[in-house]
Amino acid sequence: FVSWVRTVQDVSSKAWEMGMSDPRKIIFSAKMALALSLISLLIYLREPFKDLSRYSIWAILTVVVVFEFSIGATLSKGFNRGLGTLSAGGLALGMAELSKCAGEWEEALIIASIFIVGFLATYAKLYPTMKPYEYGFRVFILTYCFIMVSGYRTGEFIHTAVTRFLLIALGAGVGLGVNIGIYPIWAGEDLHNLVAKNFMGIATSLEGCVNNYLNCVEYVRVPSKILTYQASSDDPLYSGYRAAVESTSQEDALLGFAIWEPPHGRYKMFNYPWKSYVKVSGALRHCAFTVMALHGCILSEIQAPPERRQVFHNELRRVGSAGAKVLRELGNKVKKMEKLGQFDILYEVHEAAEELQKKVDKKSYILVNSEGWEIGNRPDEPGPPQESLNMDDDEAKYHEYKSLSEAVLDLRSVPVPKSWDEKVSMGTNFNHDGMKSFPSGMNSTPSGVPPDNLFKKNISWHAGLIFTANGEPTHEESKTYENASALSLATFTSLLIEFVARLQNLVDSFEELSEKAKFKEPVESPETV
Amino acid sequence: FVSWVRTVQDVSSKAWEMGMSDPRKIIFSAKMALALSLISLLIYLREPFKDLSRYSIWAILTVVVVFEFSIGATLSKGFNRGLGTLSAGGLALGMAELSKCAGEWEEALIIASIFIVGFLATYAKLYPTMKPYEYGFRVFILTYCFIMVSGYRTGEFIHTAVTRFLLIALGAGVGLGVNIGIYPIWAGEDLHNLVAKNFMGIATSLEGCVNNYLNCVEYVRVPSKILTYQASSDDPLYSGYRAAVESTSQEDALLGFAIWEPPHGRYKMFNYPWKSYVKVSGALRHCAFTVMALHGCILSEIQAPPERRQVFHNELRRVGSAGAKVLRELGNKVKKMEKLGQFDILYEVHEAAEELQKKVDKKSYILVNSEGWEIGNRPDEPGPPQESLNMDDDEAKYHEYKSLSEAVLDLRSVPVPKSWDEKVSMGTNFNHDGMKSFPSGMNSTPSGVPPDNLFKKNISWHAGLIFTANGEPTHEESKTYENASALSLATFTSLLIEFVARLQNLVDSFEELSEKAKFKEPVESPETV
Repeated sequence: FVSWVRTVQDVSSKAWEMGMSDPRKIIFSAKMALALSLISLLIYLREPFKDLSRYSIWAILTVVVVFEFSIGATLSKGFNRGLGTLSAGGLALGMAELSKCAGEWEEALIIASIFIVGFLATYAKLYPTMKPYEYGFRVFILTYCFIMVSGYRTGEFIHTAVTRFLLIALGAGVGLGVNIGIYPIWAGEDLHNLVAKNFMGIATSLEGCVNNYLNCVEYVRVPSKILTYQASSDDPLYSGYRAAVESTSQEDALLGFAIWEPPHGRYKMFNYPWKSYVKVSGALRHCAFTVMALHGCILSEIQAPPERRQVFHNELRRVGSAGAKVLRELGNKVKKMEKLGQFDILYEVHEAAEELQKKVDKKSYILVNSEGWEIGNRPDEPGPPQESLNMDDDEAKYHEYKSLSEAVLDLRSVPVPKSWDEKVSMGTNFNHDGMKSFPSGMNSTPSGVPPDNLFKKNISWHAGLIFTANGEPTHEESKTYENASALSLATFTSLLIEFVARLQNLVDSFEELSEKAKFKEPVESPETV
Repeated sequence: FVSWVRTVQDVSSKAWEMGMSDPRKIIFSAKMALALSLISLLIYLREPFKDLSRYSIWAILTVVVVFEFSIGATLSKGFNRGLGTLSAGGLALGMAELSKCAGEWEEALIIASIFIVGFLATYAKLYPTMKPYEYGFRVFILTYCFIMVSGYRTGEFIHTAVTRFLLIALGAGVGLGVNIGIYPIWAGEDLHNLVAKNFMGIATSLEGCVNNYLNCVEYVRVPSKILTYQASSDDPLYSGYRAAVESTSQEDALLGFAIWEPPHGRYKMFNYPWKSYVKVSGALRHCAFTVMALHGCILSEIQAPPERRQVFHNELRRVGSAGAKVLRELGNKVKKMEKLGQFDILYEVHEAAEELQKKVDKKSYILVNSEGWEIGNRPDEPGPPQESLNMDDDEAKYHEYKSLSEAVLDLRSVPVPKSWDEKVSMGTNFNHDGMKSFPSGMNSTPSGVPPDNLFKKNISWHAGLIFTANGEPTHEESKTYENASALSLATFTSLLIEFVARLQNLVDSFEELSEKAKFKEPVESPETV
């Protein structure tokens, strides 16, 4: 009994939570209950219309079936139901007249007609473009069969058809009246909010990616949910972009309903451009794919050494936060339905990206290792800086980090390959840094994390790259790995720049939307300095 | 009239095509029609059971509603309908007894109970985890209202409930019998085929990406469908990975049905691990995201110059085709339900990736430009090659391409910035190559392509990077652009290597699936040399 009480408590607390997070659900349930009660009332009270009350089932059925969460869905289903009923009714009456002339073959004719109509309607509804009308076809088949069968039994084809239609109209009337009249829930508004929400999710993911990358956050074990692209609520970075990428089907469904809705609220326009919202969301998704790839750099086992990332620290962070700011601003504009205004929204992020690009230009030697070059090595010592202004804090920090990393390397007493001395005497500055991330990936599994044996072999390939059969890293192979690790930083940087480039496309589709949907001019431009 | 004939021709040719491409649709339609005819037959023939025939609508309704394309969907809907009807029937009978005691308040009590039941059931069905049972709740509400209303009218609650239940059972019996008995269509098989198809799609995309990249295929205008991530059938490369990425919701739906299906055909096992198929597909999707990012490198405006790509030509192509081969092989194994066998399926692609990695190691100077380096430039002339064996064809080709590109540059008479001479005299080998792709992106729009004015501003940012207000490229900015273009090749390479790394995860989930689903051992290993 105690467990039973507990279950009840559980269920009611969950129900309460759902109600709090989205009160529309409570309102909708109440509306549905009200419509049902009204229909029942009607049936009770009218004693003279006994006949109608006998077919009350049709009115109830219609209310139950047509009453959908959003107005668009209700209208679309109602339309389907109406059209299906009417056309099937017409066809059935015609067939009934015809079958009466058939004399003793009447029954056979009716069954044959049911077979043929059933076949054709079912086949038609399987055609891909007919998908939105699937319900209409179902109603069509149902009505046709019902009128034929029950009309044959009573011999009153027309009476059956008319009563049925009247009651369906009654049910639809009550259903639509209650659903639209009392606190209507619009699919279009949901679509609008979903698109705005996607902007925020991707902005969060972008910032998270850049920050995690700079703080060298590593996944000790990449959660298997990410590796198999399943929904996960643990990781806001992952769930942010996943939700945006996955919302395609939801958007399509909402779009399908929204186009049924009459002008309302803030969307006072016939043929409101709902499609453009979906387009903006698609352009946003195109940006999200680069964020996804950025996240891939964090997930990867091949990691650039922290000290190299520090070199580009300020620039990367600036691009990341400027990019996120643009996304948030656009998201807010979508939400508030404002136009862009005079100010170039991309100015800041372009500036930041150029800054990053210039930095890369100056320090691209960090992105590669030079020992293997066939055309000869870099000169041993850093030459005099060409622009002394640029020998800034970062550079100093870089040297500092480097030596730290070398210290770490010494402490761990990696077996020294034969050619180690040569390499050191060659005076290359940072060729061993790349190794740091590899042992940390191998050894630093905290005991709290249960080993996920499905993915235990994940690291085997890179291990294979580095260790030969006798377990000692060979010169050539460890170098190979190092170089990959430095390239990873190059990848991150160039993906970030690609992200910035894709923003233009997003802004363009937003502008198209804001024109078509006649967004209002921004009241005051908050950006004007 | 002629246009009408044409429309009929059109429709029938489309119907014919659909039937040819998936004959199951024809069979399904015929099954549906057969079930309807059978139900009609039953109602006609039994004269003594007039009563049953009066409620024939329930049997017809059940057939129409329960008859779904796949067996899993049919069973799940049938279960929902059965459970909803039974529980609502029980509750309604109980309430009816109760309301009879209420005397003159009976009607009010009935309506109040309808309100409460309607509210609670509607609210419960909105709970996210209740989604699969949405239909069950609908039936519950419908049945409850119907029994209360029509029972009150006739005073025969039990009779109404029992008749209704009998007819629903009859309809469900005929529906299930026909649907399962004659050429059943299994959701599980669809899921299985979908997963296998995704492998092929991504293999095609991967090969396409690598080949297009090496052949320097450029999109003159990126189709707006790609920029807004909409379905497009023009570009097999794009549609290959998009279909795989977008199939999540389809997979989830099929999974929801497949778990309802009894063991059948090749899936002779209770609790068949359908979930593992979805997991494998998820792991595949995780790989697909790198293919997506690779495609992003082709879509990008910042392009590495062709002659630099040629340097890595053989290695990139080898990794691409080995990767696609692995995907195809895994796809076939999934399709044929075979285990992996002794041979390491990843051996070849790992070899190829290592090869690529070594090449990158040797020639990573190609991936960056050195002029801006603060630590000084590379030595002017290529030093004597450290390993003369490696001064191979590629290298020769590279030099050849370089001079070609310089010739092109001279012909086009780009305005020479002030510091041009200095740069040339500095003897850097390939610093102008990067510019080639920029003018081609600007000028080579074939006249056949209608300008898409939504995206006309796409190139504005990079144009801004290169040209100052007076229209001449400045030294610093054009260099910035060059460097980005070289980094793009680094990105492509490292994404490809990341793709290879992710294959391990895919193979692991495949092995998990092949264990759980008890795939057969491969009959003969075609890989044994």
